[in-house]
Amino acid sequence: MARFHFADTSDSDMFYAVGGNISDPFFLIEMEGKSKIFLNALEIDAFIDRNKNPAIEALPLDPFQQKAKTSEKGNELGKLALAILESSGLSSKPLGVSRKFPLDVADYLRSRGVVLSVKTPFMPERAVKSSQEIGCIREALTITDHAFKIIEQILSESHIEDQKVIYREEILTSEFLKKRASSFLFENGMDDPEGMIISSGAQAAMPHHKGAGPIRPNETIVCDLFPRSRESGYFADMTRSYVKGAPSPHAAKMYEAVKLAQDKAFELIRPGVQARDVHNAAAKAIKSAGFEVGTKGFIHSLGHGLGIDVHESPSISGSSEHILEVGNVITIEPGLYYPEFGGVRLEDVVVVTSQGFENLTKYQRDFVIK
Amino acid sequence: MARFHFADTSDSDMFYAVGGNISDPFFLIEMEGKSKIFLNALEIDAFIDRNKNPAIEALPLDPFQQKAKTSEKGNELGKLALAILESSGLSSKPLGVSRKFPLDVADYLRSRGVVLSVKTPFMPERAVKSSQEIGCIREALTITDHAFKIIEQILSESHIEDQKVIYREEILTSEFLKKRASSFLFENGMDDPEGMIISSGAQAAMPHHKGAGPIRPNETIVCDLFPRSRESGYFADMTRSYVKGAPSPHAAKMYEAVKLAQDKAFELIRPGVQARDVHNAAAKAIKSAGFEVGTKGFIHSLGHGLGIDVHESPSISGSSEHILEVGNVITIEPGLYYPEFGGVRLEDVVVVTSQGFENLTKYQRDFVIK
Repeated sequence: MARFHFADTSDSDMFYAVGGNISDPFFLIEMEGKSKIFLNALEIDAFIDRNKNPAIEALPLDPFQQKAKTSEKGNELGKLALAILESSGLSSKPLGVSRKFPLDVADYLRSRGVVLSVKTPFMPERAVKSSQEIGCIREALTITDHAFKIIEQILSESHIEDQKVIYREEILTSEFLKKRASSFLFENGMDDPEGMIISSGAQAAMPHHKGAGPIRPNETIVCDLFPRSRESGYFADMTRSYVKGAPSPHAAKMYEAVKLAQDKAFELIRPGVQARDVHNAAAKAIKSAGFEVGTKGFIHSLGHGLGIDVHESPSISGSSEHILEVGNVITIEPGLYYPEFGGVRLEDVVVVTSQGFENLTKYQRDFVIK
Repeated sequence: MARFHFADTSDSDMFYAVGGNISDPFFLIEMEGKSKIFLNALEIDAFIDRNKNPAIEALPLDPFQQKAKTSEKGNELGKLALAILESSGLSSKPLGVSRKFPLDVADYLRSRGVVLSVKTPFMPERAVKSSQEIGCIREALTITDHAFKIIEQILSESHIEDQKVIYREEILTSEFLKKRASSFLFENGMDDPEGMIISSGAQAAMPHHKGAGPIRPNETIVCDLFPRSRESGYFADMTRSYVKGAPSPHAAKMYEAVKLAQDKAFELIRPGVQARDVHNAAAKAIKSAGFEVGTKGFIHSLGHGLGIDVHESPSISGSSEHILEVGNVITIEPGLYYPEFGGVRLEDVVVVTSQGFENLTKYQRDFVIK
């Protein structure tokens, strides 16, 4: 079944299909490994100038825009879509579309008899990374490693005074650590389009709290960085948890449980294994350490695919239908969250190989920073 | 009619609706100026912690997820959407949805009798900016002004040697200028998520060519920066065109025509004026200066709304139906493009006021840099 889409490359499937950024939305038709893209006058020459993929044919939108300009008003984009499909002989064939396909265009096409069915994921092949893509992720992770070194260094050079963490005579804050990490990432070719998490205390017990204000001593600090390479478009994703000073016995126990859960997950990863079994192995380790899974404790799934989206297919959850295959790049990130004790999460990125897996995150998992 | 959507805040309507970033997609119901958002367990506490808008009620997704878990498999998201609509008594009322509403969820809801109609734009109120929003855009533009100062300074301190522009004994490139501008923007709280254009020579004749390689002396250089404030999420957008050295008489004439077109557009801007008349005034000036409009010369529309998208409503084009109103923030960016002569574009951002307009771009429009 041919695939059809209309979007700009902020839609990752489109970025994947054309291998770079195109600012204005364009039409894509994919069949039998070949793509046609239909670009407006502002984009087409620049695209042809940089495109190196012979399987992509770039065509101008202009003639179709002329054709779609009929007397009746409205549905301009739908008419354009129909004219493009007709030119490729596809207007009477079933087409696979993304769940992100514009709803008004879908409505128009269907009213003209075009059969559209939603495919989720739209480009399942993205879950299997090429060696080039793995190289991009590896590079992104290496830079991210260094950002963690900077965070640890600052925590290590700080001291505790009056229930505050003090760095160079100032109260150390989430904002300061994020600024330092972010600057390093930027200088090394990475953006953090979705921000980063550096949270402590009760904030760290909210998995998606970005963190703000003073870093709390003797309490857990969750640092989750998910920057993207400006050059390649690929993301890194990595989490470490720390305590500056002395953790409570309960926090130390949480950390050990999370570390064990990650190790138990690693033991299972190889081609042919059900993703949900990997999640369940981690969940079992959490439970055996005396913690909860579900609405308290370990409240999220173990991991997710990583690539040109920070969260992409496959999902590594208890309900995942995915079977691991060579080239899957996934995060393994068990966590525990309790408002009264804080949060702990450890996240590495692994690639599934014929031998099992390679952990692309080379960084240590130290917890206590004196 | 109530509005209904499911997306994360990379969908600008959702960012606008909740006033900040939420990483995971969530459901939004809006009616009579009040919003309900339905967030998963990872997001809800962090959102409530930072939300300051009493018109937004945050509710947990969990109970609906339980309700949506029926025996039959598939359409999980559609079932969830239906459960949410039922809980608000909206499953039998017509609902306005975004063209970005997930197509598979729309298909499921419609199969259950829910009436969805696509509203484009989904949140037309975004086209009228509050004074706070105008303040955010003004701030973003002020920082962008400075980035242009840096670019001009480098061009001004360069010299021409052997058909190359030389800066500090190195050949000056698009990449170098972009890096310097980008670093300055980053240090001042701005990202350039969609990159920037610094192109010269034949590249400058392709409006969306980002620019690469040596800056060409005595030829046009187009610099188009559209960075976004990390803090506010609002974009700046600004273009200047230069020649380092001496422009050809033809390029100089192009520049004068573009400048005249921008001035003619400015003369018309006030509340109640048709956006297309503003475009047409600029096009007329271009033609009267002896250049083409349409498939050659001035090949794009005059401008667009600016806010949390770099391109948003209203469109300032020859076919726009929009009537300017107080609070519209729009770009005015005529341009001329000829492969043999290069490209020239000038872009300012203006806000429509009761008196006419204010030009938020305070920067000079110098062309020749000796």
